[in-house]
Amino acid sequence: MNNFDFHVPTDIRFGKGQIECLPEELSKYGKKVLLTYGGGSIKKTGIYDRVMELLKDFEVYELSGIEPNPKITSVREGVAICKDKGIDVILAVGGGSTIDASKHISCGAFYPGDPWDLVKDRSLVKKALPLAVVLTICATGSEMNSGAVISNEETKEKLEINTPLLYPKLSICDPKYLYTLPARQSAAGAVDIMSHVMEQYFQPNDEAYITDVLSEGVMKTVVKYALKTINEPDNYEARSNMMWASTVALNHLLTVGKGGAWSVHPIEHVVSAFYDITHGVGLAILTPAWMKYVLNENTKLRFARFAREVFGVEDVDDMEAAKQGIEEVKYFFKSLGMPQTLSEAGVDSKQFDKMAAEAVRTSGLSKRSYVKLEEDDVKNIFELCK
Amino acid sequence: MNNFDFHVPTDIRFGKGQIECLPEELSKYGKKVLLTYGGGSIKKTGIYDRVMELLKDFEVYELSGIEPNPKITSVREGVAICKDKGIDVILAVGGGSTIDASKHISCGAFYPGDPWDLVKDRSLVKKALPLAVVLTICATGSEMNSGAVISNEETKEKLEINTPLLYPKLSICDPKYLYTLPARQSAAGAVDIMSHVMEQYFQPNDEAYITDVLSEGVMKTVVKYALKTINEPDNYEARSNMMWASTVALNHLLTVGKGGAWSVHPIEHVVSAFYDITHGVGLAILTPAWMKYVLNENTKLRFARFAREVFGVEDVDDMEAAKQGIEEVKYFFKSLGMPQTLSEAGVDSKQFDKMAAEAVRTSGLSKRSYVKLEEDDVKNIFELCK
Repeated sequence: MNNFDFHVPTDIRFGKGQIECLPEELSKYGKKVLLTYGGGSIKKTGIYDRVMELLKDFEVYELSGIEPNPKITSVREGVAICKDKGIDVILAVGGGSTIDASKHISCGAFYPGDPWDLVKDRSLVKKALPLAVVLTICATGSEMNSGAVISNEETKEKLEINTPLLYPKLSICDPKYLYTLPARQSAAGAVDIMSHVMEQYFQPNDEAYITDVLSEGVMKTVVKYALKTINEPDNYEARSNMMWASTVALNHLLTVGKGGAWSVHPIEHVVSAFYDITHGVGLAILTPAWMKYVLNENTKLRFARFAREVFGVEDVDDMEAAKQGIEEVKYFFKSLGMPQTLSEAGVDSKQFDKMAAEAVRTSGLSKRSYVKLEEDDVKNIFELCK
Repeated sequence: MNNFDFHVPTDIRFGKGQIECLPEELSKYGKKVLLTYGGGSIKKTGIYDRVMELLKDFEVYELSGIEPNPKITSVREGVAICKDKGIDVILAVGGGSTIDASKHISCGAFYPGDPWDLVKDRSLVKKALPLAVVLTICATGSEMNSGAVISNEETKEKLEINTPLLYPKLSICDPKYLYTLPARQSAAGAVDIMSHVMEQYFQPNDEAYITDVLSEGVMKTVVKYALKTINEPDNYEARSNMMWASTVALNHLLTVGKGGAWSVHPIEHVVSAFYDITHGVGLAILTPAWMKYVLNENTKLRFARFAREVFGVEDVDDMEAAKQGIEEVKYFFKSLGMPQTLSEAGVDSKQFDKMAAEAVRTSGLSKRSYVKLEEDDVKNIFELCK
């Protein structure tokens, strides 16, 4: 088991009606709030009205229209408001995109230059505004971690900034807010959660048994409830288990004692930087192809364990179990309505070379991933998904 | 899934050599340190010398001799030193007893009256000294939670104080420190960890599936490694998995979304308050008896699930699986060298009535436990363990 630090100070308020604590909690930081959100679905669902009512004694400024795969342009806009108005606290209402942009804004507010610099050199992050979250899409786990992924359209880069200063102070996770999610968002979220756990589970270290069994538990939870959140959108048991699964999947718990780089996310990040596809969709297409590509005599044991523990595959040898596990993953994502090929998602093969090069350049793929991948390998994985 | 708050701010430094951070971390709080420890084993193992070397630029005061089932008399002694010397930070080096006493001292230092008052009325706790921990026995999980159990010999009470002020700021968990643990302490610790998870797993709420599967993962870890820590005391993989299991077992993660009171701990607390036996020994004797006593048509499903998921029981119906699970628990504790009866542990039947009454009076046994227990029930459980 590798050495690790575990220090996750976010205060999670989980369950029905937890939003009522907002006035008391935000007032700890001041009166000037920057409210951030996305395309405006929170206005349709009534969450916006409830928030504004709760914040009636605050001075609220708004940054709306934060897009999926959030852009540095939105971050710049938010930073300008923070500096101009002397914001005390940011309140992000939304999913991973809104939270990630808000995290970036929170540290950009104290940096004199362009906030994109902070992605390139994290040591420039010295301070951040306090951030509170009202979670309305569960997927990225951003509500309880210190990472934020931001895209730059000009440079076609999608990169992560990660420092302990970016932990939200408070995250309100009310499973009822998920009832109105469109099926495709519930599905893409489920794929993202599953992928987060798999990225940590498939790392070159077998001694952190406890971390692996906890991971298997979270994956079993996703497999058990994902389709139910689509077929019965207001099933509280399903929504609450998925919501907490998404948080636990990426709050550091499932990576402790392990080691190594992620395998599929870096590839997907490049695809969605080039084609702006939904992150979960990209992962659903790439994950089974990656599994197939890296399955071999050395990796079959771990894949077989995955198949047996998560999908209950039985009565076959390791290699066969491993293969069945890959089919199970493929079938699982398909059952959620995910496309199976890059072409279905609007990604053609013209940029395979460029994307493969970029994926290897911007990540640990060729150095520390479960099975090391060079440009040719990434290209081969793309070919498998055509 | 019940509503919950999850906010665990302790900074865990896990792994080899993590103790080196002590000077930097403690200096955040000041120069005057109260070093607390138990019977002096840390002097034999060299940990004491290493700590003193690291703290050579601090003003260190000592409270040694903190006993198992720590007493309010030790707490009073520590509080007096804190008040007298103006202590800035407490450093507890030891296991649950030393940590729990230190937690109580940390809040007693700011209370003008007798610290036992704080156990009786938690609202009197307003402030606490910062507490750092160097963990040398893994069992209670006290290194990452906000509870402390203290005994009062005069009143024969063993009670818990629990408030967010009592989270340690920092806990250093180096699995190598466990290499020198006597087998009986490793065994008693394993029983305690297993029992913590079972107390949370056997609660009247089946909707928190994710919490239950995470619990099963931790229990599988304990079953996999407990005996190995005894047979191969310096097996790092075994020690590290057990050490992190003990922390996760009681850092709030395995209780979220569940509800209800604990069942076996309140009974054991009374036994060890009356007879001063080792907590893990009491749990090893009482747990299988409690399981047998509360197994019925209503509870068999949960017991069967436990047997199948944790011990791999197969190919039998629910009631039979449940019964086999109880035998597995009994056999598991026996394999660790635990006594099987109260008489073996030096507990006679003379005080069964009194202890049963006290257990029900001081806990939620008769109101919110998995199967509600009245005095007669507790007495019957004692009889099963004679």
